Amino acid sequence: MPANWPRKIDEELKAANGVPGLETCLLEYRALRDRQLKLNLARGVPSAEQLALSEALLALPGPGDFHTEEGTDCRNYMGQQGIPEARRLFAGVLGVPPENTVVEGNSSLALIHDCLAYACRNGVPDGDGPWQNVAGGLAFLCPVPGYDRHFKLCEAFGIRMISVPLRDDGPDMEVVRTLVTQDRSIRGIWCVPKYSNPTGTVYADEVIRALAAMPTAAPDFRIFWDNAYALHHLGDQETEIANLAELCVTHGHANRALVFASTSKITFAGAGLALLGSSSQNIAWYLKHAAFRSVGPDKLNQLRHVRFLRDEAGLKALMRQHRAILAPRFARVIETFRQYLGGLAQVSWTEPAGGYFITLDVVPGTARRVVDLCRNAGVILTDAGAPFPGGVDPDDRTLRIAPSSPSLEQVGAAAEAIAICIRLAAAETVHGEVVLI
Amino acid sequence: MPANWPRKIDEELKAANGVPGLETCLLEYRALRDRQLKLNLARGVPSAEQLALSEALLALPGPGDFHTEEGTDCRNYMGQQGIPEARRLFAGVLGVPPENTVVEGNSSLALIHDCLAYACRNGVPDGDGPWQNVAGGLAFLCPVPGYDRHFKLCEAFGIRMISVPLRDDGPDMEVVRTLVTQDRSIRGIWCVPKYSNPTGTVYADEVIRALAAMPTAAPDFRIFWDNAYALHHLGDQETEIANLAELCVTHGHANRALVFASTSKITFAGAGLALLGSSSQNIAWYLKHAAFRSVGPDKLNQLRHVRFLRDEAGLKALMRQHRAILAPRFARVIETFRQYLGGLAQVSWTEPAGGYFITLDVVPGTARRVVDLCRNAGVILTDAGAPFPGGVDPDDRTLRIAPSSPSLEQVGAAAEAIAICIRLAAAETVHGEVVLI
Repeated sequence: MPANWPRKIDEELKAANGVPGLETCLLEYRALRDRQLKLNLARGVPSAEQLALSEALLALPGPGDFHTEEGTDCRNYMGQQGIPEARRLFAGVLGVPPENTVVEGNSSLALIHDCLAYACRNGVPDGDGPWQNVAGGLAFLCPVPGYDRHFKLCEAFGIRMISVPLRDDGPDMEVVRTLVTQDRSIRGIWCVPKYSNPTGTVYADEVIRALAAMPTAAPDFRIFWDNAYALHHLGDQETEIANLAELCVTHGHANRALVFASTSKITFAGAGLALLGSSSQNIAWYLKHAAFRSVGPDKLNQLRHVRFLRDEAGLKALMRQHRAILAPRFARVIETFRQYLGGLAQVSWTEPAGGYFITLDVVPGTARRVVDLCRNAGVILTDAGAPFPGGVDPDDRTLRIAPSSPSLEQVGAAAEAIAICIRLAAAETVHGEVVLI
Repeated sequence: MPANWPRKIDEELKAANGVPGLETCLLEYRALRDRQLKLNLARGVPSAEQLALSEALLALPGPGDFHTEEGTDCRNYMGQQGIPEARRLFAGVLGVPPENTVVEGNSSLALIHDCLAYACRNGVPDGDGPWQNVAGGLAFLCPVPGYDRHFKLCEAFGIRMISVPLRDDGPDMEVVRTLVTQDRSIRGIWCVPKYSNPTGTVYADEVIRALAAMPTAAPDFRIFWDNAYALHHLGDQETEIANLAELCVTHGHANRALVFASTSKITFAGAGLALLGSSSQNIAWYLKHAAFRSVGPDKLNQLRHVRFLRDEAGLKALMRQHRAILAPRFARVIETFRQYLGGLAQVSWTEPAGGYFITLDVVPGTARRVVDLCRNAGVILTDAGAPFPGGVDPDDRTLRIAPSSPSLEQVGAAAEAIAICIRLAAAETVHGEVVLI
């Protein structure tokens, strides 16, 4: 215990708002530190148990198996769009026909990056030139809380980020509509439409329809639709959302949707496939620019995935196995939060029906403190503020919890640790911050 | 035969400069067309025989094998720089220590593209900002003939290309030195230093030293050193060239060299590994920007390659097997050219000691005609002009022949076809072009 242990510990008292007394909280926290945990819940990383589900991939495609159904040799060059059987397998996930599907390398973030890079450097169909030349500076709408790596991409490209509240049914469409009709420099919006990172939000069909239909000042406005958790259900309810690509066609904005997905959380996180679905014009645009960059993606890994997953039924069966591993971890966290944080005012958490995250709102002004307290007790969380543009949460309140990677037992211990830190940070708002080195 | 068969066929005559008579050439060409060949020598693509050398990769790494020597799970996220054993395996090829080696995805062209993209968007160490803002417009030196995909990258990024003659020992260093000391907008030069594409040129050690040592107006000048054929010998002589990265350090320009290589023509062309070697500052720069784009490359494919190739000795043994397949193809082409084109003035070809190409200089003004005549006879060649910026060969003279992909027999037939087309095109310069539909 540090030498400069709290100058003064108040008598235990039930503070206003259900915050427990500081002494109780401190005792809990000291006991927590004595457990010397070493756990990481910072990123949405599959567990070893999940990765083992795709063990067969390690020896696939196997000797003599390297031709596509069309006879292309997957060991050799060529084939920018991905092999036909892989495009057919994943087209349904994207909601576009196989001919409008691109199967790429091992990272959908890279695919998103490259689309943004080509748009910035060369412009997109319906546009009037490179996005990097947009008068007043290129801007994107960022529903918050959102995915930190999307926002980091904006930083890398010097894109101005405009936060938009994420409601229970998706981005606040009144705000979105007003902004995109008024500001021609806004060329895109980041969306994780199903089991959103980090809130688990599922966009309502009316919101999706509104995104497809709304008029925009910029004719080349794009929705970056990162459907990363399309098949990643946690309950029996396999939520379906409206098909953005189709709706964009219906409403006369065929080129508006860029739909992304990946198998990173289906097969191997580091060695999966990235997917893009869009209009014929956008696909031609992407392929044209991608051809400067590379002779094409790794087709053998695509064949390997086709051999392993076989078809959409195979894909869904695998996802049910993932669910069986993941659901208990989420349940354990939520159960622990209920137990420890149930009565605490201003503290709440999501109970997502899918995806990889639980969002936790703590007492405003304490999120960073909670992350520090957790780190100090051996539990690494995503940086507070990460789900906000620039890494700054204006209320310093929202935390992202990723319960997938540790074991069930560890997840329980981690959730308990987080709860203890939240209680201590809450008590500190009443009693003053204690010094913990 | 076409209806509009030549209006007038001259009597056979030995024209000046050893060009055979038009009638002989036409008879040959008609017989050639009757053979109805269907061959492609356009790109440097490995043959099925070569790809079969790495058959074992198809079932690797195999069940239960997914940990690096450090215990990293290759199936999962993370690891921007590549796995340690892969970096160690390939560091020697690049001429840098393993800690200055990056092992990336399946395309070194993509790695080159990305370095260029990050430089254009964000600038590089020693520089004063993004290359896209260079006053007067960013420019690159392009030794010619050179690799068409390098020049295409310049087009994609809007980079001004300045041609520099490629001599027998590398780029004309007098020209290079004058340009880089005078013009601050020149930030890079494209080099394929060993068995150059398409000429087979091997840069002399003094040229490499001069490139490392020369003063440049731009402090952030970079040599894009695409050592694609580092191990790709065709003869017993395993040519070694000077170590550019080391020389750059010696001469106080540690950040000048960006060294690239790949296993595309070692294992599988579509499913290999891309390699980058450079200074610590450049590697940190690359990794920083790559981290925005992706969580990291496919580590399983790296492990797969390590298991298969084992070490540098394994790598070199494999390359000797490639040589046994490739060398006879090159010999067949050269032998055929000698036989058909031996006496023809103004026609010459390279006899490379390594790499994937033979460069053929035909009668000036006839290269495009030769490509058309070949296509018309079922033999596809690289477009005339491809080895020059903008795809325009000022002398319309230089052709690139890629003999790797067809079988030995087919390569002989293709070389014969090319020679017949060259003779006919040469004869036409004397007798007037014939009409062939």
